[in-house]
Amino acid sequence: MAIANPLFIAVVGVGGVGHCFLSQLAQLAVRRPFPKLRLCYIANSRFAFYHEDHAPINLDLALEYLEKSATAPIPLDSLVDHLAKAPGKAIIVDNTSSQDVANSYPSFLKAGISVVTPNKKAFSGSYELWQNIFGASEASGAKVYHESSVGAGLPIISTLKDLVETGDEVTKIEGVFSGTMSFLFNSFAPVGGGGGKWSDEVKNAKTLGYTEPDPRDDLNGLDVARKLTILARLVGLPVESPTSFPVQSLIPTELESCSSGSEFLEKLPAFDQIMEERKAAADGKVVRFVGSIDVASKKVEVGLRTFDATHPIAALKGSDNIISFYTRRYGNNPLIVQGAGAGGEVTAMGVTADLIKVIAQIAS
Amino acid sequence: MAIANPLFIAVVGVGGVGHCFLSQLAQLAVRRPFPKLRLCYIANSRFAFYHEDHAPINLDLALEYLEKSATAPIPLDSLVDHLAKAPGKAIIVDNTSSQDVANSYPSFLKAGISVVTPNKKAFSGSYELWQNIFGASEASGAKVYHESSVGAGLPIISTLKDLVETGDEVTKIEGVFSGTMSFLFNSFAPVGGGGGKWSDEVKNAKTLGYTEPDPRDDLNGLDVARKLTILARLVGLPVESPTSFPVQSLIPTELESCSSGSEFLEKLPAFDQIMEERKAAADGKVVRFVGSIDVASKKVEVGLRTFDATHPIAALKGSDNIISFYTRRYGNNPLIVQGAGAGGEVTAMGVTADLIKVIAQIAS
Repeated sequence: MAIANPLFIAVVGVGGVGHCFLSQLAQLAVRRPFPKLRLCYIANSRFAFYHEDHAPINLDLALEYLEKSATAPIPLDSLVDHLAKAPGKAIIVDNTSSQDVANSYPSFLKAGISVVTPNKKAFSGSYELWQNIFGASEASGAKVYHESSVGAGLPIISTLKDLVETGDEVTKIEGVFSGTMSFLFNSFAPVGGGGGKWSDEVKNAKTLGYTEPDPRDDLNGLDVARKLTILARLVGLPVESPTSFPVQSLIPTELESCSSGSEFLEKLPAFDQIMEERKAAADGKVVRFVGSIDVASKKVEVGLRTFDATHPIAALKGSDNIISFYTRRYGNNPLIVQGAGAGGEVTAMGVTADLIKVIAQIAS
Repeated sequence: MAIANPLFIAVVGVGGVGHCFLSQLAQLAVRRPFPKLRLCYIANSRFAFYHEDHAPINLDLALEYLEKSATAPIPLDSLVDHLAKAPGKAIIVDNTSSQDVANSYPSFLKAGISVVTPNKKAFSGSYELWQNIFGASEASGAKVYHESSVGAGLPIISTLKDLVETGDEVTKIEGVFSGTMSFLFNSFAPVGGGGGKWSDEVKNAKTLGYTEPDPRDDLNGLDVARKLTILARLVGLPVESPTSFPVQSLIPTELESCSSGSEFLEKLPAFDQIMEERKAAADGKVVRFVGSIDVASKKVEVGLRTFDATHPIAALKGSDNIISFYTRRYGNNPLIVQGAGAGGEVTAMGVTADLIKVIAQIAS
């Protein structure tokens, strides 16, 4: 089936995920000669590269062009107009974690421009934004796909959508949604006992690149809360925001005001005893940082829970995520998806796979 | 986005999966008012119900109409013509396990009729049939989706396709692909030791409905070999047939010629010692019946393997399937999907989810 009309792709954000995505996109364009994918816009927060007439940008040289560009990015509302004028359907791939870009999705979608993104902000921000995004998509037929907003390339959102859309009743979702928290607790409280001091484990995780520059951005639980917000909304719970349900922070109150991540790490050992007690209280079980959604009671929670050594959550390794879907059809044994839930390559994979699905639907 | 043109759906096969599918389809049609899904043909192996002018069949009454019908099914090649004449795009949903229906997929696809099915036969038969199916789909643009041909509703095929299409390198696939074998070995050789006599476990599994009427149809490994054939082909290995690679049968040679499943079960206890020795030889590990694909060496195998007690395959419960995808991007910790891999409801779920994906692509 030859497809005549080119598809215009705009990419904003060229950090770790963006780099990997561009490389996957270049490979994709080579492997799949049609539809004609045409990169027509690329931007980071300061610069952009594009042609006024939407002429194609060589995928292999796009990053180089961007590096040399002195052109400012097109403001988001003007970018909507620019892409809407392209002589073919357009898709914006948002590889940023920007709230501003997220806020503009309804405008893109209203203009018939599909959105593909790993950016959690749009789907875990206000419930009004969520409604505006999916309302605009429904009205115009433009698609919005965001697999990598939860668990990176793992098939979490697609699986949940399949369960819901085919009429299964999801009763509970439970899992380890943060690669950082997974790594920390698999080291701190391994099955069979042992593990180092909490503050040492946090330092080690930071050294190995598993935490944000300031580890408090992981330990506050907000990243997990954002992911839970997205999944809860997909099962129909109108969660207002990621701060509208109980989220346990692992930052000692006294250290919330530290002016830097380094100061926080320096003072953390004084609080090791608290975590040591939590580990001891597990009493033969292991302690893990999990998120859960109980659909019937509409209860969404993020925090420490204990699990038997034989539970799949206890058996997790490295920085893997694990997500269990309990449903009416699957009964007592949940549908489980497990694997790396962070990293440039696997996050970009979710984005590229979404792009392929959008193309299959809008290409003509 | 209102969709004007109705989509015509023909359903062949109304056994366990077919029943569940029809019920899910009826719910779907209620929940999603567009595109207009129109059931226009329903058949089992002996009878059919339809209108010459493709008029819609009431989804809630379709089975009743079929039960009362004395009309023979339309022969497959004529059914192609009948559906091609429908005033809109058509989809055939094959809920049979018939090789004949499978053989006709290329004809349906050539005529622009999409195929959705859990039937393994088409994708694990001759490699020529595989090529004809996907060649016909490529040429006409009609879609062919078969998620439930491996692991029922579990996201196995969709995940593998995403990995391959986004350019990941799959290095190994390994797993427990048979609910029957899973149940048998989780009972016969549980982690921590114990378990009953092999012949008792087989009898028990049959009583509980976990085996085919003749358990040899599970124990010969062919069902697993068919699933492996499908996955191997999806990663690009041109596997000729499910009998073109080593498949370990658990039927003692002496019992291959038993004239019935009952005779087989009666004589099986005499061979318990063989399985007992296999369990003992595992030496602290547990024995499981697994399928594996080593992509680099192009080696596909089905048979008994041993696993450490901490391995996810050893931790499996009940009749669950588990499939691990080892890839370049996922590194040492594979992407794992786990859960019920058989049963009417979850198999039908895979079919319905596929149908939704096909509709999203062909509706206009």
